[in-house]
Amino acid sequence: MDTHELLAVSERRHQQVERVLAAFFSDSHYRAKALGAPYAALWETLERNTAGGKRFRPRMVMAAYEALGGTDLDAAAHVGAAFELLHTALIVHDDVIDRDFVRRGGVNVSGRYRDIATTAGIPLPDAEHRGMSVAIIAGDLALFNAYRLIDRSGVDGILRTRLHDLLDEAMFVSAAGELYDVDFALRSGLPGSGTGTAADDATGSPGSPTVDEILEMERLKTAVYSFETPLQAGAVLAAASPAAVAALGTFGRNIGIAYQIVDDLLGVFGDERDTGKTTLGDLREGKRTVLLAHAVGRPEWGEVAGLIGSPELTTAQARRIREVLEETGSRRFAEALARDFANRAWEALVDPVLPEAVREEFRPVVASVLGRVR
Amino acid sequence: MDTHELLAVSERRHQQVERVLAAFFSDSHYRAKALGAPYAALWETLERNTAGGKRFRPRMVMAAYEALGGTDLDAAAHVGAAFELLHTALIVHDDVIDRDFVRRGGVNVSGRYRDIATTAGIPLPDAEHRGMSVAIIAGDLALFNAYRLIDRSGVDGILRTRLHDLLDEAMFVSAAGELYDVDFALRSGLPGSGTGTAADDATGSPGSPTVDEILEMERLKTAVYSFETPLQAGAVLAAASPAAVAALGTFGRNIGIAYQIVDDLLGVFGDERDTGKTTLGDLREGKRTVLLAHAVGRPEWGEVAGLIGSPELTTAQARRIREVLEETGSRRFAEALARDFANRAWEALVDPVLPEAVREEFRPVVASVLGRVR
Repeated sequence: MDTHELLAVSERRHQQVERVLAAFFSDSHYRAKALGAPYAALWETLERNTAGGKRFRPRMVMAAYEALGGTDLDAAAHVGAAFELLHTALIVHDDVIDRDFVRRGGVNVSGRYRDIATTAGIPLPDAEHRGMSVAIIAGDLALFNAYRLIDRSGVDGILRTRLHDLLDEAMFVSAAGELYDVDFALRSGLPGSGTGTAADDATGSPGSPTVDEILEMERLKTAVYSFETPLQAGAVLAAASPAAVAALGTFGRNIGIAYQIVDDLLGVFGDERDTGKTTLGDLREGKRTVLLAHAVGRPEWGEVAGLIGSPELTTAQARRIREVLEETGSRRFAEALARDFANRAWEALVDPVLPEAVREEFRPVVASVLGRVR
Repeated sequence: MDTHELLAVSERRHQQVERVLAAFFSDSHYRAKALGAPYAALWETLERNTAGGKRFRPRMVMAAYEALGGTDLDAAAHVGAAFELLHTALIVHDDVIDRDFVRRGGVNVSGRYRDIATTAGIPLPDAEHRGMSVAIIAGDLALFNAYRLIDRSGVDGILRTRLHDLLDEAMFVSAAGELYDVDFALRSGLPGSGTGTAADDATGSPGSPTVDEILEMERLKTAVYSFETPLQAGAVLAAASPAAVAALGTFGRNIGIAYQIVDDLLGVFGDERDTGKTTLGDLREGKRTVLLAHAVGRPEWGEVAGLIGSPELTTAQARRIREVLEETGSRRFAEALARDFANRAWEALVDPVLPEAVREEFRPVVASVLGRVR
C-alpha cells in the first residue's frame, strides 16, 4: 500500500470508531436528560474529554482485525471503542490521582468542574475537591460502560466471553500499574528528593524505583491496555489461532514498552514543535521514568536531583538536567533500551504464525519507534 | 413461616452469597499475586472492605427470586453478589468524595492506605492523598468486576442482557444521585451555612436543596441501586412477567425512599444502642436530609442553622438542634413522609400481578420501616 492508501484506511477506521462513540454518547445523553440537566451536562463533559484523541487503542484493534482477515468493521469498531472508553476512564481517574486539572492544553473534567465552582465564588480548595469528585463519577461512568460497548458489538457466545476477558485483563493489569505508580511517587518521597526516604517502608522496597521496576510499572500501567490487549482483541475477533493471538500479544507488550520509553525520552529531550508538549512538564511534575531511574545514584546526578519535581524549574535548570542525563549515559541507555524492545517486538511479528499482512500493517509502528531514537 | 424458618432462609441466602464472593476474591487474589505482593494486598483490603456487610442488596435479589418461584439459588447469588460489588465500589468512591477515612467504626480503604503511609513517616496531607488515590483504584476494580459476576452466573442470552441492563441502570442512576449530592454540598455553601450562598449559581438552582430535591437525590443515589433494581433483577431471573417486574420496581423505589428517610431520622433521633452509630455524626458532617431541608427557612431554625456541619458540635448543641427540629415540625413531617412512602410501597405489593409469596416475603420489610417511625 502506498501512503495515500494507508491514510485512507486509517481515516476509514477512525470514522467508524467515531460513529460508534457518537451513538453511545447520544444514547447516554438522552438517558441522562431524564435525570436532570446537570447530569446531562456531565455526559457532555465526558464526551468532550473523550473527543479529539488519536483513537490509538481502537486503531490497534482494527489494524489487527483487518490484517488477520476480519471484515465486520462495525463489530471491530465497537470493541475498539470499548478500549477507548476504558482509556478515558483511566486517564480521568489518573488525573485525579495526579491532581492535574489540565490535559492536552485544555481543562479536563476536574478542571472544568473546579472552574464552574470558582466562578460561582467557591474557595479554591473546595472548588478543586468538587472538580475531583465529579471526575471520580465521570471516570466511573466511562469505566462501567466500556463493557457495554462490547455487548453492543453484536458478537455473542464464546467470542464475546473472550473479548470480555481481554478487556477485564486490560483493566485488572492497569490498576496494578497505577497502584505501583502511586507507590513509587511515595517512595521517591517529597518532590525534589531523588533518593529514598522514610517512605520506603510504605511499599516494602527501599529507595527510588529501579529501572526494572519502572519498566514493569509502565508495562502494567500502559502497555497492556494500550497495545497488548487491544491487538489480541482484534485477533480474537478475527478468529485467529491461539498462536497468532499470543504472537500479537508479545508484539504488543514489547512495542508498548518501547513506546513508553520513547515517550519519556521525548518528554525531556523532544522537540516541542514536534511533540506539541513542553519538555519542562515531565521534569516539573517529577514523572518517574527509566531515564531518571538510570541516573539516580550516579555521582553526577547529585547536582540536579533536587530539581526534579520542582514546579518552578527554569529553562536553564532543565538544560542542565539534560546535560547531566547525557553525562550519566542515561539518555543513551534509555535509547538503547527502546531499540531493544522495538527489536523484540519485530521478532514477534516475524513469527510465521502471523500472515504477511500483519507485518505490513505494523512495520510502520516499529519503524516510527526506531525512527524517534537516535 | 415462623421466625425460626425465616432466619434459616435468611442464613442460607447469606451463605450462598458469601460463597460466591469468596470464590471471586480468591480468584482475583490469585491473579493479583502474579503482578506483585502489593497488588495482592490491595485485593485483600478490598475483600475486607466488602466483608461484614449485611448483604442487603443480594438479599433483595434472592428474596424476589425465590418468592417468584426461582430455584437456581447459585445463579441468584451471583446476581446478588454483582449488586454487592457495585455497592462496595460506590461507597469506596463516596468515601473519597466525602473525605471519610472511617466506615462502620474501622478504617476504610483510604484510611488503611493513609495509615500505612503515615506510619512510614509520610506527612499527613500526602498520606491522605495516597489513601484516597488507592481507594479510587480499589473502587474501580470493584465497579469493573460487578458485571463479571453476572457473566459468571451461568445465565445466558436475553436473560443475561436484561440483567446487564438492570445493573447498568443501577450504576447510571446512582452516578446522577452522587453528582447531585456533590452539588448540594456546594450549594449549601461552607459548613455551617444554612442558607444559599454565591455557590448557588454553580448548579443553576438557588439556595439550600428543597425537600423534593433531597428526595429525588436519595432516590437516585441509593433507592434505585439498593432496592428497585436488585428486586427487578431477582424477578427477571425468575422469568416473572413484565407487569410483576414493574410492580416490584415500584415497591422497591418507594420502600427505598422510605428507608432513606428513616435512616436520616435515626441518624439524628435514633437510639445509639439500637443503631450502633452516634447521633452526632450526621449533624457534624452536615448530611443533607429531608429532615433538615424541611427545617431550613423556618424562623426557629436560624438559631441552630450555623451549627450544622460543625465537626466540634457538642452533645448539648445536638440536643438543642433536636428540640428545634421538633418545634419546626420537621421530625413529624419526615416521619409522615416515611410512612407515606412505605404505604405506597405496600400498595404496589398488593397488586394482583404479584403472587402471595411476594407479599409474605416483603411484609416484614414494610413493617420494619413503619415500626421505626412513631
